[in-house]
Amino acid sequence: MPNPAPAETITLRTDTLTRLARASTATVATLLFKRGYQNAFVQGVAPLGTGRQTMVGPAYTLRHIPARPDTDPITAFRERDHPQRVAVEQCPEGAVLVMDCRQDASAASAGTILLTRLQIRGAAGVVSDGGIRDATGATALDMPVFAAKASAPTNLTKHHAIDIGLPIACGGVAVYPGDIMLGDGDGVMVIPRHLADEIAEESVEMEAFEAFVLEEVLRGVPVIGLYPPTEPDTLERFANHKAQRGSKAD
Amino acid sequence: MPNPAPAETITLRTDTLTRLARASTATVATLLFKRGYQNAFVQGVAPLGTGRQTMVGPAYTLRHIPARPDTDPITAFRERDHPQRVAVEQCPEGAVLVMDCRQDASAASAGTILLTRLQIRGAAGVVSDGGIRDATGATALDMPVFAAKASAPTNLTKHHAIDIGLPIACGGVAVYPGDIMLGDGDGVMVIPRHLADEIAEESVEMEAFEAFVLEEVLRGVPVIGLYPPTEPDTLERFANHKAQRGSKAD
Amino acid sequence: MPNPAPAETITLRTDTLTRLARASTATVATLLFKRGYQNAFVQGVAPLGTGRQTMVGPAYTLRHIPARPDTDPITAFRERDHPQRVAVEQCPEGAVLVMDCRQDASAASAGTILLTRLQIRGAAGVVSDGGIRDATGATALDMPVFAAKASAPTNLTKHHAIDIGLPIACGGVAVYPGDIMLGDGDGVMVIPRHLADEIAEESVEMEAFEAFVLEEVLRGVPVIGLYPPTEPDTLERFANHKAQRGSKAD
Amino acid sequence: MPNPAPAETITLRTDTLTRLARASTATVATLLFKRGYQNAFVQGVAPLGTGRQTMVGPAYTLRHIPARPDTDPITAFRERDHPQRVAVEQCPEGAVLVMDCRQDASAASAGTILLTRLQIRGAAGVVSDGGIRDATGATALDMPVFAAKASAPTNLTKHHAIDIGLPIACGGVAVYPGDIMLGDGDGVMVIPRHLADEIAEESVEMEAFEAFVLEEVLRGVPVIGLYPPTEPDTLERFANHKAQRGSKAD
Amino acid sequence: MPNPAPAETITLRTDTLTRLARASTATVATLLFKRGYQNAFVQGVAPLGTGRQTMVGPAYTLRHIPARPDTDPITAFRERDHPQRVAVEQCPEGAVLVMDCRQDASAASAGTILLTRLQIRGAAGVVSDGGIRDATGATALDMPVFAAKASAPTNLTKHHAIDIGLPIACGGVAVYPGDIMLGDGDGVMVIPRHLADEIAEESVEMEAFEAFVLEEVLRGVPVIGLYPPTEPDTLERFANHKAQRGSKAD
Amino acid sequence: MPNPAPAETITLRTDTLTRLARASTATVATLLFKRGYQNAFVQGVAPLGTGRQTMVGPAYTLRHIPARPDTDPITAFRERDHPQRVAVEQCPEGAVLVMDCRQDASAASAGTILLTRLQIRGAAGVVSDGGIRDATGATALDMPVFAAKASAPTNLTKHHAIDIGLPIACGGVAVYPGDIMLGDGDGVMVIPRHLADEIAEESVEMEAFEAFVLEEVLRGVPVIGLYPPTEPDTLERFANHKAQRGSKAD
Repeated sequence: MPNPAPAETITLRTDTLTRLARASTATVATLLFKRGYQNAFVQGVAPLGTGRQTMVGPAYTLRHIPARPDTDPITAFRERDHPQRVAVEQCPEGAVLVMDCRQDASAASAGTILLTRLQIRGAAGVVSDGGIRDATGATALDMPVFAAKASAPTNLTKHHAIDIGLPIACGGVAVYPGDIMLGDGDGVMVIPRHLADEIAEESVEMEAFEAFVLEEVLRGVPVIGLYPPTEPDTLERFANHKAQRGSKAD
Repeated sequence: MPNPAPAETITLRTDTLTRLARASTATVATLLFKRGYQNAFVQGVAPLGTGRQTMVGPAYTLRHIPARPDTDPITAFRERDHPQRVAVEQCPEGAVLVMDCRQDASAASAGTILLTRLQIRGAAGVVSDGGIRDATGATALDMPVFAAKASAPTNLTKHHAIDIGLPIACGGVAVYPGDIMLGDGDGVMVIPRHLADEIAEESVEMEAFEAFVLEEVLRGVPVIGLYPPTEPDTLERFANHKAQRGSKAD
Repeated sequence: MPNPAPAETITLRTDTLTRLARASTATVATLLFKRGYQNAFVQGVAPLGTGRQTMVGPAYTLRHIPARPDTDPITAFRERDHPQRVAVEQCPEGAVLVMDCRQDASAASAGTILLTRLQIRGAAGVVSDGGIRDATGATALDMPVFAAKASAPTNLTKHHAIDIGLPIACGGVAVYPGDIMLGDGDGVMVIPRHLADEIAEESVEMEAFEAFVLEEVLRGVPVIGLYPPTEPDTLERFANHKAQRGSKAD
Repeated sequence: MPNPAPAETITLRTDTLTRLARASTATVATLLFKRGYQNAFVQGVAPLGTGRQTMVGPAYTLRHIPARPDTDPITAFRERDHPQRVAVEQCPEGAVLVMDCRQDASAASAGTILLTRLQIRGAAGVVSDGGIRDATGATALDMPVFAAKASAPTNLTKHHAIDIGLPIACGGVAVYPGDIMLGDGDGVMVIPRHLADEIAEESVEMEAFEAFVLEEVLRGVPVIGLYPPTEPDTLERFANHKAQRGSKAD
Repeated sequence: MPNPAPAETITLRTDTLTRLARASTATVATLLFKRGYQNAFVQGVAPLGTGRQTMVGPAYTLRHIPARPDTDPITAFRERDHPQRVAVEQCPEGAVLVMDCRQDASAASAGTILLTRLQIRGAAGVVSDGGIRDATGATALDMPVFAAKASAPTNLTKHHAIDIGLPIACGGVAVYPGDIMLGDGDGVMVIPRHLADEIAEESVEMEAFEAFVLEEVLRGVPVIGLYPPTEPDTLERFANHKAQRGSKAD
Repeated sequence: MPNPAPAETITLRTDTLTRLARASTATVATLLFKRGYQNAFVQGVAPLGTGRQTMVGPAYTLRHIPARPDTDPITAFRERDHPQRVAVEQCPEGAVLVMDCRQDASAASAGTILLTRLQIRGAAGVVSDGGIRDATGATALDMPVFAAKASAPTNLTKHHAIDIGLPIACGGVAVYPGDIMLGDGDGVMVIPRHLADEIAEESVEMEAFEAFVLEEVLRGVPVIGLYPPTEPDTLERFANHKAQRGSKAD
């Protein structure tokens, strides 16, 4: 079956995550579009709060199916192997906990206490296409959290955590464990792991070019011929711009 | 974790499926409601065609996540272990193939050829919360098929078959392998396997009572006092009614 | 408050319902549009079954609000004053039972037994923006039933019947008790009671004209100038057409 | 009919509202879930503005049905008994005005002027599953307002205020007059009046425990064994924690 | 701008439409998917009625924008240049009238009279992502009609016909005038005109193969190795199958 | 055809835009409602950011249809006549760029670079019923931007810019070139150009009255009799209020 190679077989370059952390999701969306990936933006989620929104890290997945009275009594969390609690305690440092809630935010998928534990354990962030409860507390965290909305009901109301580490859907996008999750003010992009190195590399030049274009626009240059650079001298000016910035970039 | 016991550990009484085949989904919905199961009706699916719609059998599950260019090229089906094809060839006789398509019917989850193969292999039916292509052919089958709607695009457009035999969501309901799927003109109910025997048993009396009530209503009896039977003589008349039918029932 | 006058204060002409029974919902929609009524079509409902679909009669209303565990136990129907059962037993002969289910068809609002009782009691039809359970039985009735779809779960799952005879919403339209409900293959229109006489009267001529236009079109006349009749001789031909039919109309 | 007892027959303990004002909607959602109330969160509404969001008080209900040209001319508000205006002038001090707009926010249900009047009259807050116009002004009020979104069109465009003081639906939840509405940053919970005392009482301990857990998490304690407190010494530490805080709590 | 070449510059092979008329939308969807066209199925429309559903022909487009009181009075149709009436009188013989109603079926886009006129004028069919009024009459036509649903309100209620012959959206898909519309029981595919010849050609072989596969499946052959034909002897058997049918195909 | 007169034939009074800039969308919605315009609020868009939100200017329209692989390759923007780029360079000073994205915000319709160019060129604002990418940058602009939400994917993913200067739909409302777009914290109203002068004129008095009413409410006056001013002395007090403000108004 043409599934992606397992994450552990795909080593990333050491600078890939750093480079991606300087890229916007818009840039990455364009680079993925070029490669035929048209459905890589997690639909329906936004950053909670207005604090730090830049998030980058490999996906650590938690899947939910609909709750049922026999599987989701209020005592469910007393089980030491409840997948939600296990995920919170085992999500690797630097990873992003990605939760599949079938885009149903009528109940929560986590709250401030679990999110705080994840932050302390060094998670890079959380993405859920369900709700977040006690969201005011969550927005005060330093760790970025992307979710559909605030939602007070406990996850037991709607979501039964069923397994960890499987490929899932989140916001209408396939997420394989180890895929790179990139978040900013626009939302979250899923970068297939085997493409992360080349996307990261291309993003450096592309971000530099976008910064140059914005400067040009701010000084009054029209966008036709500039963006994309179909006028020959645009690329020349960009070369100068880069030369001037020199060591600053990357 | 409070998951249901595995299907293989829950043996059904020999008459359970036969009894359920004579029960309506409406009756089963009420019996499940009594036990606190309020979310057991597969939302958004209907029988294709107007032929045989009564379906009963244990769930055999196939899960899809969103498609991606690397995992879903047109050549994907050439792989002998493609889960969709494997599911069609391994779904046990008498079982119902239940497919999780995240309630997205903008593409198909199967077509006439695969459905015909399932019928020939003795499947009891198919339930999908995605689309069915070549649906005119599918409606002509003897095997009941419940789906969201006809949809021409190949599943590769939207759905990547990822695994078989795991608990899934279908139409907003949890389906564990081995749960009993019951379908009729109203749609499909999911009966948790550990409740199937007792639901089947109770359904016999309840269907008999509903038949009695319908007869009473047809001869002009008001529903208050009759349905439910709060008038003392209603139960008496029902006893007579059953006595008369005698051996016919169950 | 500018509410409509109570139904009992608005007497209908004796031929109004008969005339409306010969009008299509499309014709009535146009006549209401002329008077500024742009939101009079019950959205999201269709006739169950393919039998008789022509329905006309004054609205008798039943309102539901969301269910709650304390108000909707399985024993709820044992109460003799349960509004759903009372509505079924008190809906006047010739009236249409109209149910407000907040356009939520994930559960039923009635089933075959209650619908059969309504038919026997002489109701003119049923309109629900919720579901109908045991719908195969319902489609076999002679009384027209318009609903969102078949849905097996008991109404207790989602809908608490709360009162009878109040103004309600159904399919996004205001329905005041006594408003005239007209149904056919297109669905259901709500005619404000104070307009019913004049709508009925105008519909006679309009239906006659539509029949004439269809004949003209079938013999090859272009629609421009014919429909609407901006060519002077169109009205002349229509006059002849009517003269020929003579006593047949109305 | 199994309706809740009338509000006036259910007296609340004097400290119930004060206690609830210190509880989060998430805590209350869990306490209601324990009692089988799975649908008590008003879906689709959020606090307007970022100011005070804590709201608690008994529900005072206003119901709307769809507007119609005869019932909703621009002059409608000139009637002294227009239910919206009456509601604004009669909503009791300390009560929450709850409006049923059928989850349709394409038009407003109130604006800054009426909301200001409610604040001056001492209302505890407003909940609407419709829109709010002139929302910038509304966000500056001290009184919390929960609604679907800002929406400029006058309510006459879509909503006809029809009655006051009846049980309604709001955001998909049943609201009976006198039920306790609790709002915070997550949204709004509806507490059935007959449960308010016991929910309030339990919330004191639960909030104390959540505060203790958050402290523990912040100092590095894993959540398994802590939350819920399945490790024996967790409860011991909690006892110490409470002893230390002593008189501070409640 | 990379728009498609105008329809009049792309001549079709004489057998293209005949071949497509024998192809299913499912087959064409797969052939388009192979070429990267993943969004070519008109979402949300279905054939009205159960009669002839096979439709093929070039698109003739009519665009609507939302109605307004000044542009859509009841007298609007009296104008001889009203685009809807003009479209009905000028749609070329053999063409398919495709209407953009912004996927809003709360009002109609046409009714039986106009559809009958189109049939008489030789149109190949009609596709609308809005409603159809007087739909019972429409289902009795010989000309296939694909629409969202029956809907009684006149188009003036919601849709203002604004122009003819421009590229439009229909059911979420781009339709350029002259694109080939193919309809059957599954719905409608849009074939970009410049691909029609090659899609038609490939469809002949593919339909033949699908027919062969169905026969094989009916005689008990498993789908793995057969569909797609990865077993070497599958293609051999298919060659024999075709040889036997000989002149029957194409 | 009853289309509006072309924008160039309708000259506005010189003070119309200034007056509208002081009016709220709520006020304008009421004034349009009075004239029968019930669908003039752009549904589903909100101001990006919390900065300046007051926007007024004539509409300059850009229409999109769904993207296709042949029309929307990544190189599409290299064409000097790409309508999106042309629109950005030709949108007149003081005009509002209004984009029809079929209410699909799963991809962007513009990003910070193009929006900055528009600001520099003197556009009065932007309205899109699609997404905005790089939205954090966009929220920092001085020019108001109203859109459905932040969305990282390039417009090529979903939207093909097809033409400029035609009547379009935006957020479910008809927008003719030259119609006056008014935006504030509630969202955006579309004022038909031929009504702009009289709406502007009436808004002056109405805003003055609303300001007076708010003052009255703040000092404790009940709304009944005040708003609308059915008490005779309300108008008297308003006259005094205006006399006192004197030259301040308009």
